[in-house]
Amino acid sequence: MSTEAVGDFGLIGLAVMGQNLILNGADHGFTVVAFNRTVSKVDHFLANEAKGKSIVGARSIQDLCAKLKTPRRVMLLVKAGSAVDDFIEALLPFLEKGDIVIDGGNSHFPDSNRRTQYLAEKGIRFVGAGVSGGEEGARTGPSIMPGGNEEAWPYIKDIFQGIAAKSDGEACCEWVGDEGSGHFVKMVHNGIEYGDMQLICEAYDILKRGLGLSNKEIGDVFTEWNKGVLDSFLIEITRDIMYYNDPADGKPLLDKILDSAGQKGTGKWTAINALDLGMPVTLIGEAVFSRCLSAQKAERGRASEVLEGPQISPFTGDKKAFIDDLEQALYASKIISYAQGFMLLREAAKEYKWKLAMPEIALMWRGGCIIRSVFLKDITKAFRTNPQLENLLFDDFFNKAIHNAQGGWRRSIIRGIELGIATPCFSTALAFYDGYRSKVLPANLLQAQRDYFGAHTFRVLPEYASESLKEGADIHVNWTGRGGNVSASTYLA
Amino acid sequence: MSTEAVGDFGLIGLAVMGQNLILNGADHGFTVVAFNRTVSKVDHFLANEAKGKSIVGARSIQDLCAKLKTPRRVMLLVKAGSAVDDFIEALLPFLEKGDIVIDGGNSHFPDSNRRTQYLAEKGIRFVGAGVSGGEEGARTGPSIMPGGNEEAWPYIKDIFQGIAAKSDGEACCEWVGDEGSGHFVKMVHNGIEYGDMQLICEAYDILKRGLGLSNKEIGDVFTEWNKGVLDSFLIEITRDIMYYNDPADGKPLLDKILDSAGQKGTGKWTAINALDLGMPVTLIGEAVFSRCLSAQKAERGRASEVLEGPQISPFTGDKKAFIDDLEQALYASKIISYAQGFMLLREAAKEYKWKLAMPEIALMWRGGCIIRSVFLKDITKAFRTNPQLENLLFDDFFNKAIHNAQGGWRRSIIRGIELGIATPCFSTALAFYDGYRSKVLPANLLQAQRDYFGAHTFRVLPEYASESLKEGADIHVNWTGRGGNVSASTYLA
Repeated sequence: MSTEAVGDFGLIGLAVMGQNLILNGADHGFTVVAFNRTVSKVDHFLANEAKGKSIVGARSIQDLCAKLKTPRRVMLLVKAGSAVDDFIEALLPFLEKGDIVIDGGNSHFPDSNRRTQYLAEKGIRFVGAGVSGGEEGARTGPSIMPGGNEEAWPYIKDIFQGIAAKSDGEACCEWVGDEGSGHFVKMVHNGIEYGDMQLICEAYDILKRGLGLSNKEIGDVFTEWNKGVLDSFLIEITRDIMYYNDPADGKPLLDKILDSAGQKGTGKWTAINALDLGMPVTLIGEAVFSRCLSAQKAERGRASEVLEGPQISPFTGDKKAFIDDLEQALYASKIISYAQGFMLLREAAKEYKWKLAMPEIALMWRGGCIIRSVFLKDITKAFRTNPQLENLLFDDFFNKAIHNAQGGWRRSIIRGIELGIATPCFSTALAFYDGYRSKVLPANLLQAQRDYFGAHTFRVLPEYASESLKEGADIHVNWTGRGGNVSASTYLA
Repeated sequence: MSTEAVGDFGLIGLAVMGQNLILNGADHGFTVVAFNRTVSKVDHFLANEAKGKSIVGARSIQDLCAKLKTPRRVMLLVKAGSAVDDFIEALLPFLEKGDIVIDGGNSHFPDSNRRTQYLAEKGIRFVGAGVSGGEEGARTGPSIMPGGNEEAWPYIKDIFQGIAAKSDGEACCEWVGDEGSGHFVKMVHNGIEYGDMQLICEAYDILKRGLGLSNKEIGDVFTEWNKGVLDSFLIEITRDIMYYNDPADGKPLLDKILDSAGQKGTGKWTAINALDLGMPVTLIGEAVFSRCLSAQKAERGRASEVLEGPQISPFTGDKKAFIDDLEQALYASKIISYAQGFMLLREAAKEYKWKLAMPEIALMWRGGCIIRSVFLKDITKAFRTNPQLENLLFDDFFNKAIHNAQGGWRRSIIRGIELGIATPCFSTALAFYDGYRSKVLPANLLQAQRDYFGAHTFRVLPEYASESLKEGADIHVNWTGRGGNVSASTYLA
């Protein structure tokens, strides 16, 4: 191997994602230096997949750095957590001021905040880049969401936009913002992915248990839905899954899969962040909790024997109308989920003092990633028309869409309730919609309760402000009077 | 002031809660030493509220410790956070091995874990005690939930059980468990309190906007409900609040209160902990998010102008039946919330290796605290009948109760959906119920999707295990086949 500095960028971590990103880079004319802690993996990669391409191997961190043009661009694709810190420490002795370290893993954004700061102090530019699209996306064009030290962007822009997915000719990669904002946007993407998947599961459950359709028939429904407003990668793969039979007996494989899902990652982080920032991202929250409930498989089995619900009778009504309603329920719930996701992004920008460009974020999610869809084209359009758009529901297109959808949405949830089939995400989406569009919510009672038992005080609605109830003042009242015959001096403190 | 060691226990922090606990202790025959950082507060307290009682003042930490019998028992009632650590450090020079420090504030349980360990290393016994009941409870008998170093319990038991609330002659205070388990139980109590309050708000909103009742009429409904299964402190104070008129104009004060609630405390911690432990505590989650949504007051105002819902027409049906249904909706949702809360406690005991006695926890919540109710008597009974009860819903009493309630529960949520009035907690409770009693949930699809796009693998249902689909194995399939004409060797990897 040569030690000439020929590499446009280096990549550490030769699992499938890493290998595919390297091959993708080579396809786009870049010379990539590949390194892995277990060096035999490098040799194997060079002798096989990488053979004949502009890919160079490195046998050590030092070797890797020696083979990179300056400023060096080194991307880590290793397990999130301490492995990232370990590699950063291992790299530091061989880096020069101005070099760039990119973490392409699923790191938690506070870690990327910390690393940006830590490396900036040493003159090294850190980039935390969310990468979505799975193995296939990495090979053919992922969605890439880079944030961190913005000085790095001019040096990595061509590479990243070159290897990224394209949507209508635009690269699904733009600079996100400072510190861990790239990983933050990726985290919210994953949270939304949790939501999209749970929504599809609820529609599937209603079609299966409520309408009594076969997997083939459900596959046909998803085939149709994939031609309309729901056209997306996740609907497409659901169609495939419905049609997929176990080759051993020709029966649907899906029916044999254990209904128990894990949740320990980015979906949970999104829900926790929403709670921390005080943003009502209820749909992702319910999606995460739905996975938790699914994981209680044994207990559910015992519960199913002692807890009764309504009788599910064979469906006799208009199937077509039922299915059309369900499509609207899925669509409307999805609009709410993305509206909530963008509310969280907006609040995060405020809280963490990041400049987040919403149209670019929507663009990055349009192609390459798991949530890619026609839908995100409409979101990109909405935010391009009005980059200051307060809420997706205020955009004309989505406003009309949700109004059109709400009849079917409400009917579908009601059917679920009548049938005893849970639709936690459809339901929370509608509860959010009805709460969000309520000028007055019953939280006045909550404030009164808190003042009653804990003297926590309340504020007055501006239209009812008076001498004794001043606008903006924290008011406490002695509530223990009865029946309205109380006097001001006794009860207003 | 004397420096003789006469004090049974000392208390630091003379805000209202602290003062009331001291007065409560004195009423029960204990000699209490009072200290406050601003010493003038001690003087004022001694000269007024404490006058003529077995209460001694201290002018410094050293003085406080000198006046306490050994092993010293010092309780902190100061702001949670660094103030607790600061006082612990200030106390240490004057404490001896075997002395006891009690933190009675609303500390986050990991802090209490840490403090238990830290002080144990110095031979000091730390107790983190959750105290609920507000100012009034502190004076007349709070609920106390102590955990930490169990060696301390024999020395504080009489004092704590003496000053605690009594329910049917039993003290609402028992030893909870190791480390921060006392504060953990208090945290879950507060989360449940969030849920109870939100459920009452939803019932109020339906009665007000859906049924068009006046505050007086709603007060009458709560008066009735307080005689039945919902009999509780929170229903009682809601009744009072409904009847309370602003003395300035004789109109209901509640209608003038700003409908915007805060949430930065223990409710949020409970929801985050549920996510961390993977437990579907959906009702508390939605209750916290409902507060978040209420806080978006200005945005909701704008949303109310552009987002439409169903028309709310004057109600013409059977009001009595409607209200009875609503009572059942509130009751059933409450059962779910407590079932979820106890699921979280069970998982926490497992995860943190605490021995948590469920009957005692229910007992502690029966009196003195904000969620005190007849309901908790039934829960205590359920766990006493079967301390190993897997889920509250498996207890005969609650099993029957939820079966009786579910008709009205479903009808109430459906009415809310038809009226466009949000009931996020009623709805999530029902979704949980219908999910929990489902032997098979649609999470099989979710697992198939994850395997499709990310090769995350799935497991097979035991009843479908076969040569190619082994039980317990992590199986990956190449899903891109179409229509069932796939062969095993091609698609099963």
